[in-house]
Amino acid sequence: MAVSKLTLAATSGKSCKILLGLRLLAFSATLSAAIVMGLNKETKTFIVGKVGNTPIQATFTAKFDHTPAFVFFVVANAMVSFHNLLMIALQIFGGKMEFTGFRLLSVAILDMLNVTLISAAANAAAFMAEVGKNGNKHARWDKICDRFATYCDHGAGALIAAFAGVILMLIISAASISRLVQPNKCCSTTASPSVVP
Amino acid sequence: MAVSKLTLAATSGKSCKILLGLRLLAFSATLSAAIVMGLNKETKTFIVGKVGNTPIQATFTAKFDHTPAFVFFVVANAMVSFHNLLMIALQIFGGKMEFTGFRLLSVAILDMLNVTLISAAANAAAFMAEVGKNGNKHARWDKICDRFATYCDHGAGALIAAFAGVILMLIISAASISRLVQPNKCCSTTASPSVVP
Repeated sequence: MAVSKLTLAATSGKSCKILLGLRLLAFSATLSAAIVMGLNKETKTFIVGKVGNTPIQATFTAKFDHTPAFVFFVVANAMVSFHNLLMIALQIFGGKMEFTGFRLLSVAILDMLNVTLISAAANAAAFMAEVGKNGNKHARWDKICDRFATYCDHGAGALIAAFAGVILMLIISAASISRLVQPNKCCSTTASPSVVP
Repeated sequence: MAVSKLTLAATSGKSCKILLGLRLLAFSATLSAAIVMGLNKETKTFIVGKVGNTPIQATFTAKFDHTPAFVFFVVANAMVSFHNLLMIALQIFGGKMEFTGFRLLSVAILDMLNVTLISAAANAAAFMAEVGKNGNKHARWDKICDRFATYCDHGAGALIAAFAGVILMLIISAASISRLVQPNKCCSTTASPSVVP
């Protein structure tokens, strides 16, 4: 009897570490997405005309906050990073507090809300980036990535990080929902995994 | 003892009906969003130039599949409608099958995946519609809703239905996650709510 409980404690300790690892990965993915997109800016000078033989130059800047979908992207990734940071702190330092049904339930619902948010932001930005890359001939919207290549490359990097965050958050959300069915007590890493009597 | 179990059966019967009602609402919201956007098309003729005094006319058509975000919107709303239809059928006709932990867990995870999908599609389409309505002066993308007002109105209607679907799916997902903590047996409406012994 004691042996099976020992194995339960061992596996639940291991699954908590995996969940903690996933949260750390998700935190770094969404935080880097928010930072890379938030700092994404490129300034370029183009020749826009000629007066006689003298070319007329104009300077243009591409910045993330020129596109509402990218502003939403930065805000949402920052919020989800904060959520994961909170959950990580809860798991590491919240060891003494009992992981009761209600606590697990709120973590599961919060995770679901955050995966909904990050998936909305990543997809809105992705479809907007697609228009920036390919344009839309029906709406006569020209592509911009032929003139602002660095800006688009950085944007693509932020999108990849954000979609990695979406996948990680889907796994984390499914895991925290599953924990409700077998509520193994996610012991904190500081407290030694107590053998369940 | 029997009285408290009777009240449990009564409340669980009621909560199942509410969940069923929410699913029916979500189903109609996402289905109408998919249909309205899928059929969204407007053809107009504009004067695009003059040769001498004779105006040159050209006919333009705005269709949902001219925009990848709207194609994603129609597909995602159709998928979430199908998911809800399946869950409704399961709840109505699946009465005899025991709602065990695993069944409730898979319903909760499926609901989470579907709210993630519908939120991605609704937000991607919303930000694209915003560009259609207001244009983007930085990218020099002109708005199109001044010329295709009906097309944009129908698109707005589909978006409102889809966001209603997102809110309903958030509530449904939270409810199906909460059911894992108090797994009241969601009895089917056909079988009379059996009194839990």
